[in-house]
Amino acid sequence: MARLVMKFGGTSVGSVERIKNVAKRVQKEVEAGNEVAVVVSAMSGETNRLVGLTRDVASLHDAREYDVVVSSGEQVTVGLLAMALQDLGINARSWLGWQVPIKTSDVHGAARIQEIDCGDIIRRFEEGQVAVCAGFQGVGPMNRITTLGRGGSDTSAVALAAALDADRCDIYTDVDGVYTADPRIATKASKLDRITYEEMLELASLGAKVLQTRSVEMAMKHQVKLQVLSSFEDLPGTLVVDEEDIVEEQVVSGVTYTRDEAKVTLQQVNDQPGVAATVFGALAEAHVNVDMIVQNVSEDGKATDLTFTVGRGELDACLKVLDGLKDQVNCKAIVPDPNVVKVSIVGMGMRSHAGVAQTMFAALAEKGINIQVISTSEIKVSVLLAEEYTELAVRTLHTAFNLDAA
Amino acid sequence: MARLVMKFGGTSVGSVERIKNVAKRVQKEVEAGNEVAVVVSAMSGETNRLVGLTRDVASLHDAREYDVVVSSGEQVTVGLLAMALQDLGINARSWLGWQVPIKTSDVHGAARIQEIDCGDIIRRFEEGQVAVCAGFQGVGPMNRITTLGRGGSDTSAVALAAALDADRCDIYTDVDGVYTADPRIATKASKLDRITYEEMLELASLGAKVLQTRSVEMAMKHQVKLQVLSSFEDLPGTLVVDEEDIVEEQVVSGVTYTRDEAKVTLQQVNDQPGVAATVFGALAEAHVNVDMIVQNVSEDGKATDLTFTVGRGELDACLKVLDGLKDQVNCKAIVPDPNVVKVSIVGMGMRSHAGVAQTMFAALAEKGINIQVISTSEIKVSVLLAEEYTELAVRTLHTAFNLDAA
Repeated sequence: MARLVMKFGGTSVGSVERIKNVAKRVQKEVEAGNEVAVVVSAMSGETNRLVGLTRDVASLHDAREYDVVVSSGEQVTVGLLAMALQDLGINARSWLGWQVPIKTSDVHGAARIQEIDCGDIIRRFEEGQVAVCAGFQGVGPMNRITTLGRGGSDTSAVALAAALDADRCDIYTDVDGVYTADPRIATKASKLDRITYEEMLELASLGAKVLQTRSVEMAMKHQVKLQVLSSFEDLPGTLVVDEEDIVEEQVVSGVTYTRDEAKVTLQQVNDQPGVAATVFGALAEAHVNVDMIVQNVSEDGKATDLTFTVGRGELDACLKVLDGLKDQVNCKAIVPDPNVVKVSIVGMGMRSHAGVAQTMFAALAEKGINIQVISTSEIKVSVLLAEEYTELAVRTLHTAFNLDAA
Repeated sequence: MARLVMKFGGTSVGSVERIKNVAKRVQKEVEAGNEVAVVVSAMSGETNRLVGLTRDVASLHDAREYDVVVSSGEQVTVGLLAMALQDLGINARSWLGWQVPIKTSDVHGAARIQEIDCGDIIRRFEEGQVAVCAGFQGVGPMNRITTLGRGGSDTSAVALAAALDADRCDIYTDVDGVYTADPRIATKASKLDRITYEEMLELASLGAKVLQTRSVEMAMKHQVKLQVLSSFEDLPGTLVVDEEDIVEEQVVSGVTYTRDEAKVTLQQVNDQPGVAATVFGALAEAHVNVDMIVQNVSEDGKATDLTFTVGRGELDACLKVLDGLKDQVNCKAIVPDPNVVKVSIVGMGMRSHAGVAQTMFAALAEKGINIQVISTSEIKVSVLLAEEYTELAVRTLHTAFNLDAA
C-alpha cells in the first residue's frame, strides 16, 4: 500500500468523457490498495474563457476578484470528478482550497503556498475515501480565495504530496514522460526513465513545458518523488529523483530549446565604469528580466558592444526603458532581434567531465551555426542562435552527445 | 441615507455589457448616499450548462458535489460585478456564501438559510464599501457549499435584507413590476404600485413568476419591504408591503393563471370510507403533490367520481402510483387530462366582500366557460378550466373585477 497524489491537467479533464477516464485511472490505484489524493486543473479552455471575461469587464482589475472568478474553473472539475468516482462505486469527495485548507500568502494571482492542513484528508483515507482537490487555488490570510498563477496545479500537487508525506506524486499530462529532446524535432529522442531534480529544474526553466519550475523546486526541497506520465496511455513515465537514485549518470541528459527570448545589442557603448549598472538597474526597476549578458573588452579602450537577452514578451518594455536612458548611456545604436533561439544541453555528469562545452561548440561550428551568446551553469550550457537553426542545432547536439536512440 | 439590498437575476447579468449596466444602477444608489449590498445570480444559461455537466457525468449524483459545481456560476458573477463597480471608482468586494457566512441546513440542493452573520459587511459599509454577494449559495454545518434550489437568489436577497435590517430589498428582473394580470394576455393589465405580502404570496404560488414563493414568505415573516422593478428601465416598480401600508384596498388585486397542473379523475370509485386516504396517502409517499381535490356525494350511495390535480411534470409518477393501487381501489377508469389551466383571482378585500366567487362564476358562465374544479382560500378563488379558455377567462375576469386600465 502506498499513499499517492495524482495530478491531472486541463487537457486530461477537458471533457466529461475524459473526466470519466481519469476516474478509471484513479480507480486502478484505489483497487491496488493505495490511498489517493487527486489534484485537478480546470477543464481545458475554461481558464482562458474566465480570464477573457475579467478582461472584458475591466482592463485594470482587482487581483482578488480575478481570483474569485478564475478559481471557479477548478471548482467545477473537482465536483464532476468526485461524482464520476462515486459513479464507479468509489468513496470520494471534493475539496476546495479554503476547505482543506491550503493556506497561501495574499499575493493574489501569484500566491505562494504557506501551509496545508491535511488532517481531515488523512482521517478520511482511513475510511477509504479519495480526496479530490482543486489545484491552482488556496485561501489567503484574509479568508479570500487566492490562485497560484498559471500552471499552479503542479505546485498544488507537489505541496499536497509533501504535506501528506506521500510516497509519490504522479503528474499526468499529454506527453508520456521527459524526453532527451523534443520528439517533434529530434525523431531519435527517447524517453528518460529517471532524471534528477536539478536536471528537471534546468529543463523546466529552459523551456521543456512538462512541469512548472516552482513545482520541481518544491519537490526537490521536500524530497517528493515525482513521476511524469501520460493520462491517455497506460505506460510508465519518467521519475524525477535524487541524484543518488540514478544508477548510470549521463554526461548530458537532454537537449532543450526556447524561443521565448529576444536579443538586444547596444552598439559602440562608451567603455566606462557604471554603464552596465545603469542599464541593468533601470531594467530591473521596470521588472524586465535579463537572462544572458555578454560584453567584450573594447580594442581601443573606448567603445564596445553590449548584448543581452530578455523575454520576447518584454522586448517592447525593454526598448522603452533603453530609450529613456539615451542621455545617460551613449551608444551608436540599439539593435533588437527577436529572431533568436536559446539551445541548451543539461546533465549532472557535466560537473565531472571536462570538454563538454567544447564538444557542443565544435558540433555546432561543423554545421556552420554561429553562436551569438553563451551562458553556463554547473549542469547546463546554453547558446543563443539565429532562430532558423533551431531544429538543426537540437538534432546535431542530440547526436553529438550520444543521445540518439539505437 | 438608506440601507438597500439590490438583487439582479440571471438575465440582468447575462453578459459583460449587462453586468456593466448593473454596476451603473448600483452606482446611482451609492451616489445617492445609500449603503448597498448586491445579490446576484449566475449569468443566464450558466446554471443550465453546469447542471448539464453533472447529468452527463453521472445520472445519480451526490447533491453535495452538485452544489460544488453549480455554485460556481454565482462565483463568477460576483467577481465580475465587483470588478465592474471598481472600474466606476466604487469601493466594492465580492462575498461568497461561505465567506459572509450564510449558514444553511445541510439539505444540499434545497438548503434553508439558518443564520447570516453580517458583521463584516456592516463594518465595511462604514468605509463606503459595496458588498457583492453570491445568491443561491451558502455553507452547511460540515463546511461544505450548499445551494438553495432554483430561484434561490430571491431568498438570499430577502434573507440578507432581514439580517442587515435593510430599509428595502429591490428585486430587479426582466419585468417592471407586478401586474393585475399577464400583460401578454390581458392588454389592459396595469402595473400595481403596491401589493400585500399575502397577495404576492398567492400570486407567486399561483404561477406569477415574478418572485419565488419562499422569498415572499421570508419577507413577510421578517417584515422586509420588497420592491419588484425592471433592470432595464429606470421606472418605479411594485412595492410588496404590509396591509396597513395600502391606502385603498382592492377587492381583487390580480388575475393569474398556471398551466403547470394536470387533472386526474377516478371514475366510479366505490363510495366507501378510506378510499381517499388510500389514494392520497400513496401519492404523498411517492412525493407527488396534490393541489385541488373534488369528490361529489354519490347519488346511489355506491360509486362516485374522485377528481384532483397534480403538477403536470408529476402526472406520469402519479399514474404509476394509481396503477399500483388497482387491487385496493376499485374504479371504472382512471382518466388523466393534462390540458387544463388553473385561473385565480387574488385580493385582500375578498375577506370583507361577499359575492366575489359568485361574480367570478357568473362572468365565466356568461362566456360559456365550464368550471371543472374550484378551490378557495381567504384571499383567492381558483378554478380549473379547459386549457383552451385560458386567455378568454383571464380577460373576462380582469374586466369583471374592474381591473382594466382606463
